[in-house]
Amino acid sequence: MTTDVKSSSRERLLEAAATLTYREGAGIGVDALCKAAGVSKRSMYELFGNKDELLAASLEYGASAFVARLLPEPDDGRSPRERILHVFERGELQAAKPEFLGCRYLAVQIELKDRNHPGSRVAQRVKNDLTDFFRAEAERGGASDPDLLARQLILVFDGGSARAGIGADTLAGLVVPTLTALLDAAGVR
Amino acid sequence: MTTDVKSSSRERLLEAAATLTYREGAGIGVDALCKAAGVSKRSMYELFGNKDELLAASLEYGASAFVARLLPEPDDGRSPRERILHVFERGELQAAKPEFLGCRYLAVQIELKDRNHPGSRVAQRVKNDLTDFFRAEAERGGASDPDLLARQLILVFDGGSARAGIGADTLAGLVVPTLTALLDAAGVR
Repeated sequence: MTTDVKSSSRERLLEAAATLTYREGAGIGVDALCKAAGVSKRSMYELFGNKDELLAASLEYGASAFVARLLPEPDDGRSPRERILHVFERGELQAAKPEFLGCRYLAVQIELKDRNHPGSRVAQRVKNDLTDFFRAEAERGGASDPDLLARQLILVFDGGSARAGIGADTLAGLVVPTLTALLDAAGVR
Repeated sequence: MTTDVKSSSRERLLEAAATLTYREGAGIGVDALCKAAGVSKRSMYELFGNKDELLAASLEYGASAFVARLLPEPDDGRSPRERILHVFERGELQAAKPEFLGCRYLAVQIELKDRNHPGSRVAQRVKNDLTDFFRAEAERGGASDPDLLARQLILVFDGGSARAGIGADTLAGLVVPTLTALLDAAGVR
């Protein structure tokens, strides 16, 4: 097997795991993943060791795109308040897509029900990074309690994406007034 | 089979489905459910038709306990604001239990990824009833936009229970200031 074939098998497995886990859930079987990727089970085990590690690698694989879709550019000249709102505007755009099923990093943790699963650990890190972004902007914006505001913002992010993902809310007209109330209460203008 | 045996098989299946689905996820197999209930697969199919209907019935079965655990007594003399806070205080108590894995009615919808599944339909109704409670209290409390406040409150409920369920937050010191900001912004004193 040449290096190119190896890397493309790897990529196809990561793509298939990302797509199918999101659409069908973390319980998707190895057979279905390998079939969708067009890769033998033997190759999958050689490349990733087991399905848990494949799932974790696929979550890691999607993490930089997740961050790039949501976060503003560093030092874009906008205020902390605007930079926080940017994340939620981007989230609302994602949530409006017909294929949206909520934040994959929340869903996978709810589905795995095991905080020590390699996939849960990746998901925790990705979401902690988002919370850290909120905390840094809250501090820069002079929030009375930046830790509290960061926890509130990630709660709204997760609650909103979960509710949009199950079709219980469109988020339209909901997120901006909610953030306004929280940012105002924290003194972030 | 006597009526008593039938009703106890039914009850044991409902209990097993409620417990195992919450702990392991909606993907739990029929074999595991029947084994845990000590009921034959044939009896399960006779009683419920299929696993989807068993899951829906088990969610229905737990609904009145869910409501009783969270909602205040009707006409308890407290203000709408206090009655809304009551729900979240109760939610926080639930979330502090070691076996807490989030709101089962949110989790099952995230896991099923199918809004027309009989289980999703039951879960939607249970959570819509909770949203209706919030809206009625928001109206009674003179909220500037009772619909918006109800959507905000169920968003905080779902976001909080999801984050506590995955161990990302304890909710301590988070929910009350969040509700305070939202209730104040809505003019509910």
